[in-house]
Amino acid sequence: MMNVDLQQERASATIDSEDFAQWWAGGKTNLEQRRTLESQFFNDPQFDDVIPPSCLSYKERYEHSVARGTRFLHKLRQWFGEKQGKNNVCDLNTLQEFRFLLSGPLGTGLFQQSFPLRLHFSMFVSTLLNQGTEEQQRKWLSRAWHMDGIIGTYAQTELGHGSYIRGLETRADYDAEHEEFILNTPNLTAYKWWPGGLGQTANMVVVLAQLYVGEIHCGLQSFLVRIRDEQTHEPIFGVDVGDIGPKLGANCVNNGYLGFQNVRIPRDQMLMKNAQVTSDGKFIQSGQPLLLYGTMVFVRVITVRDVMFELLQAGTIATRYSAVRRQSPIEPGKPEPQILDHLTQQAKIFPQLSRGVSYRLVADWLWQFYRNVMQTLEKNASAPASDSLAELHAVSCCLKAVATQEASEGIDILRKACGGHGYMASANFDSIYGLATAAYTYEGEYTVLLLQTSRFLLRQYVDSLKRKVLPASVTYLRDVSRLVWGKDLVENCVRSLEIASLEQIRLAWHCRNEQRKRGLGEEQANNLAGRQLVAAATAHAHAFITRTTVRELRRIVSGLKPSVAGILSQLMEIFVLDTFLRQAGQVLRWNSINGRQLRQVEQRFEQLLSGLRPNAVALVDGFDFHDRVLGSTLGAYDGRVYERLMAEARRNPLNQESVNSSFYSHLQPMMRGKL
Amino acid sequence: MMNVDLQQERASATIDSEDFAQWWAGGKTNLEQRRTLESQFFNDPQFDDVIPPSCLSYKERYEHSVARGTRFLHKLRQWFGEKQGKNNVCDLNTLQEFRFLLSGPLGTGLFQQSFPLRLHFSMFVSTLLNQGTEEQQRKWLSRAWHMDGIIGTYAQTELGHGSYIRGLETRADYDAEHEEFILNTPNLTAYKWWPGGLGQTANMVVVLAQLYVGEIHCGLQSFLVRIRDEQTHEPIFGVDVGDIGPKLGANCVNNGYLGFQNVRIPRDQMLMKNAQVTSDGKFIQSGQPLLLYGTMVFVRVITVRDVMFELLQAGTIATRYSAVRRQSPIEPGKPEPQILDHLTQQAKIFPQLSRGVSYRLVADWLWQFYRNVMQTLEKNASAPASDSLAELHAVSCCLKAVATQEASEGIDILRKACGGHGYMASANFDSIYGLATAAYTYEGEYTVLLLQTSRFLLRQYVDSLKRKVLPASVTYLRDVSRLVWGKDLVENCVRSLEIASLEQIRLAWHCRNEQRKRGLGEEQANNLAGRQLVAAATAHAHAFITRTTVRELRRIVSGLKPSVAGILSQLMEIFVLDTFLRQAGQVLRWNSINGRQLRQVEQRFEQLLSGLRPNAVALVDGFDFHDRVLGSTLGAYDGRVYERLMAEARRNPLNQESVNSSFYSHLQPMMRGKL
Repeated sequence: MMNVDLQQERASATIDSEDFAQWWAGGKTNLEQRRTLESQFFNDPQFDDVIPPSCLSYKERYEHSVARGTRFLHKLRQWFGEKQGKNNVCDLNTLQEFRFLLSGPLGTGLFQQSFPLRLHFSMFVSTLLNQGTEEQQRKWLSRAWHMDGIIGTYAQTELGHGSYIRGLETRADYDAEHEEFILNTPNLTAYKWWPGGLGQTANMVVVLAQLYVGEIHCGLQSFLVRIRDEQTHEPIFGVDVGDIGPKLGANCVNNGYLGFQNVRIPRDQMLMKNAQVTSDGKFIQSGQPLLLYGTMVFVRVITVRDVMFELLQAGTIATRYSAVRRQSPIEPGKPEPQILDHLTQQAKIFPQLSRGVSYRLVADWLWQFYRNVMQTLEKNASAPASDSLAELHAVSCCLKAVATQEASEGIDILRKACGGHGYMASANFDSIYGLATAAYTYEGEYTVLLLQTSRFLLRQYVDSLKRKVLPASVTYLRDVSRLVWGKDLVENCVRSLEIASLEQIRLAWHCRNEQRKRGLGEEQANNLAGRQLVAAATAHAHAFITRTTVRELRRIVSGLKPSVAGILSQLMEIFVLDTFLRQAGQVLRWNSINGRQLRQVEQRFEQLLSGLRPNAVALVDGFDFHDRVLGSTLGAYDGRVYERLMAEARRNPLNQESVNSSFYSHLQPMMRGKL
Repeated sequence: MMNVDLQQERASATIDSEDFAQWWAGGKTNLEQRRTLESQFFNDPQFDDVIPPSCLSYKERYEHSVARGTRFLHKLRQWFGEKQGKNNVCDLNTLQEFRFLLSGPLGTGLFQQSFPLRLHFSMFVSTLLNQGTEEQQRKWLSRAWHMDGIIGTYAQTELGHGSYIRGLETRADYDAEHEEFILNTPNLTAYKWWPGGLGQTANMVVVLAQLYVGEIHCGLQSFLVRIRDEQTHEPIFGVDVGDIGPKLGANCVNNGYLGFQNVRIPRDQMLMKNAQVTSDGKFIQSGQPLLLYGTMVFVRVITVRDVMFELLQAGTIATRYSAVRRQSPIEPGKPEPQILDHLTQQAKIFPQLSRGVSYRLVADWLWQFYRNVMQTLEKNASAPASDSLAELHAVSCCLKAVATQEASEGIDILRKACGGHGYMASANFDSIYGLATAAYTYEGEYTVLLLQTSRFLLRQYVDSLKRKVLPASVTYLRDVSRLVWGKDLVENCVRSLEIASLEQIRLAWHCRNEQRKRGLGEEQANNLAGRQLVAAATAHAHAFITRTTVRELRRIVSGLKPSVAGILSQLMEIFVLDTFLRQAGQVLRWNSINGRQLRQVEQRFEQLLSGLRPNAVALVDGFDFHDRVLGSTLGAYDGRVYERLMAEARRNPLNQESVNSSFYSHLQPMMRGKL
């Protein structure tokens, strides 16, 4: 039985969710394939939950996720193997495809807080591929791909060392006599800390360590280390390994710690594609660090997609709930309206939907840019390509930073827009937020990334003063004309964000120079100009994201069905105007915009909210999240919010006994004064 | 052993933490009393944790919190009884004092996610006191105060009804023949949902229900209902009760659901202080709803204090961690600095500390205002007092809304400033955030409260046009002079926030009138002006909080030791400048401020951050949170961050076995291809 309000919303919408879903999925075939695959798993009773996972203990959650994880991989690899046929060997493309299955909607639907076996594919196998020699790949890759006696993970971050990886302390000393490396954790802060699956699951690890050959320090290298016995799973002698404990989210990853005391591995277990140690202890550097660099960029590109997905999960839940929930009469005497009819509610939800769609357009663009740069690099690591790499690096840094920040903020706004029920674990905002906000920190912390982008921007700014040709993403720095407020509000907003970015970059440059003039070194000057540098990178990100959204939509719009094109245009406009209004401090600081013009933007923004209102439910239907993927009592397709909240509560083990044992042991004695 | 960096910080500070702590605690005696009380509990081994609570299952956490909760109350009531001596009878003052013990640092130190017995005192006993007749109090109050066969809670919110309490559906029908009320839950959305301790703990409940005498609806009334048998604790026939399940935070409260099917209670269990039903079924309204109203205001006043406390807990953790953590060289070749030396890190942390101190000053002022209004009201519920009540209501609404929003945002910023380790449950930001963000919604949802304040502001604005005398908190609405940028930056900032508030209120008023002119009713016009109304109330809150902070500090400063006065002045200035910069969009929209003036504020702001840096650790020491109250591996006084992170991880039950059982049941079969 469907909730009547949702029925009504769907009946009266002027867009067809299915049309939107097809575009969103990248075509009808893609959409159908995904649905078929999902139904094979989501309808399979071996993947049903008996007890809500949030009621389990940390240890039970681990055991539950291992059980389900192995069943999932078994079924998925069977399906994948059949699909690939003879091509089921591990290369970068196959691996990438398989990884998307693990982290996409299918993986999310089965593991709302992730699972411990994902890192094996996303980091361990890929590192073997990227950093192993052909010989090493022959020895390990097929076994790893088939999980034949191997479950791996990747260990870089240490208890005392994160962003600054040169500070890592784990060391590997070459022993030429035995042709072995000796791994050691010299002190507590050198313990590896965070790798997924490391705690109780993995038996092999790629470890990043400082290589020493005799007294000579040969930099950070990767080593393949067995940490648990293949047969007994007992930790190898000298290995100290365990789970780091509960977290804000992602509680089923089995993140671990790892310490070594004189653990020896054969010489051929250093991954030697880019650097080698010969048997007699000669160190040779031979690789292309540029390509390694590409892997870091890849993760940031993927992260923008991930948080887009999470933001729209939350947006779907909040939209459906707001169409079901009725609260606070707007007109006296009339029944309580759907809360989605409150303008203030629309102003909380719709900008998040528009932001998600904008991220999608920008992420697609970024993905294409990434592939182009990588292809050029693979052919020839020449100068022009590494210029592109610098631009790619700078763009991906600030996009990753701003997208993770705004998406997690947006998820929090959406959760709070669902009032008290949004606070329930069964609404699932907590898991979604937990994943999104983790991305704010991992693979490049927010502020660290923005400071990296700012360095690029300052260089480009100096080039612009010299009238040099600038990379595409920053050409606007050469346009020093002032804002002319025309009829096209979207263009006015984007242009004023670009001007604000240019001026903020100029100010940051000026601040840094002032500090230099006071006699400070470059790094110290950067530190004291830090607030302005961060502001510059942020301003650039807003200018870039809005400009790219507008451009990419115009590029594709003619190929779309009119109703899809129409709603995307509405969303694009909401996104741009919302960004402008949220950045009012920067925009007004650096442009001359009067009160009438601001009112114009605000009024148009509010019109757009009302305009989207009738299609809001149809739009989120078009993102086509399976109920399992949303995992939410508030967001299911049928809108049976209250029934689901109550049903989920009743499944709690605490509710299975009419009287809890603590009544006899504690409450009754207390009430009788006999404690 | 103390971390050397913290030792160094403390040795080189120019303020004395103990001086600050004495002022903060309200005097030396208060400080010593609190420390003595805390040591009696925190050093008592019966309150030690064996297993980290975040590793337990939901049911285990409940049982653990009941066991500890009864032990805690036993010990606390003994101590309290001795202290009170003959005065240990339950009146409003005694109850208030006892409640502060439960929710203050002592309660927090023992129950990071609260506990199920708190509502008994904070809502159940207080409702008996406020709404029970003298006869009812004679019958129930002493038993309730001593928990003699009674554990109570208070049930208002329903599954389908929150902010709009007139929409509640639970009903009580009077049966004159048997002189009983019959309680019923007419449908699913009418189930009570949320009351703390309701699930498995309470055996009596004060229930808010729609009273019907025959066909006549007599509004919402409170009823005292037994829901579990005093001897067996089994739910009474017709009662459907249980726990609503895991949440984002506050997971040990045992929030419950409750449904009634023809549950009968005697006539004298309607709380009849303000309204009565006679035995023959005559309904009489006699009470003073104004005083009831006062209770709602009281909770909002308390909430501002609560989130101030939580923000400063988080601020203490982040400050200490940032003095211990070393990361990312500022100068090449030198060792990694304390992250607190990065200007960007100071800009994340110090404004939160200053905000907490500002909230303290404002909360003290608000508390005094509340008491004055209540005293006047108790003497005489006359017109001038209810004017004050309207002002109190409006001020407390927007302060509660803005403080809960900014405090939870601040806690999130502080958590993220601690990087990956901030994400660990053992850092305790998750519990602190969980409590603070819950306050955003409960006892008056953010947007609902701001809309209420905005109505008051619009009325005052109209009065200002008529040159009427305005209440103290809004007198600035009569000052229509423009900003004159003088030498006093703090005054410039506060004044520009006041002007922005005035202009934003004018705009909201204008928007609403425009909608009225289009022929819309008042409520519909309010809905469409909603964004501007919310903006008006927010702008007023910022103007009011900054002005009050400045004024209250000036009022008390002459009585302070110079070093305490000095750091408070720094904090006050940071707070005002930070608010100005964060509100730049509003400030620049409504004032004419040039780039040079803005730079002046920014430069002064950055100077102030550097100026606070040497005393940051000493300052947070001065808040005098016991390690147990912080409950954080990152924030302990001794700064042994890495040792504590590792020790806490090792206590995880998952780490007590070298090989988890799921290896044999799942991982090994998978790796052998035999799943």
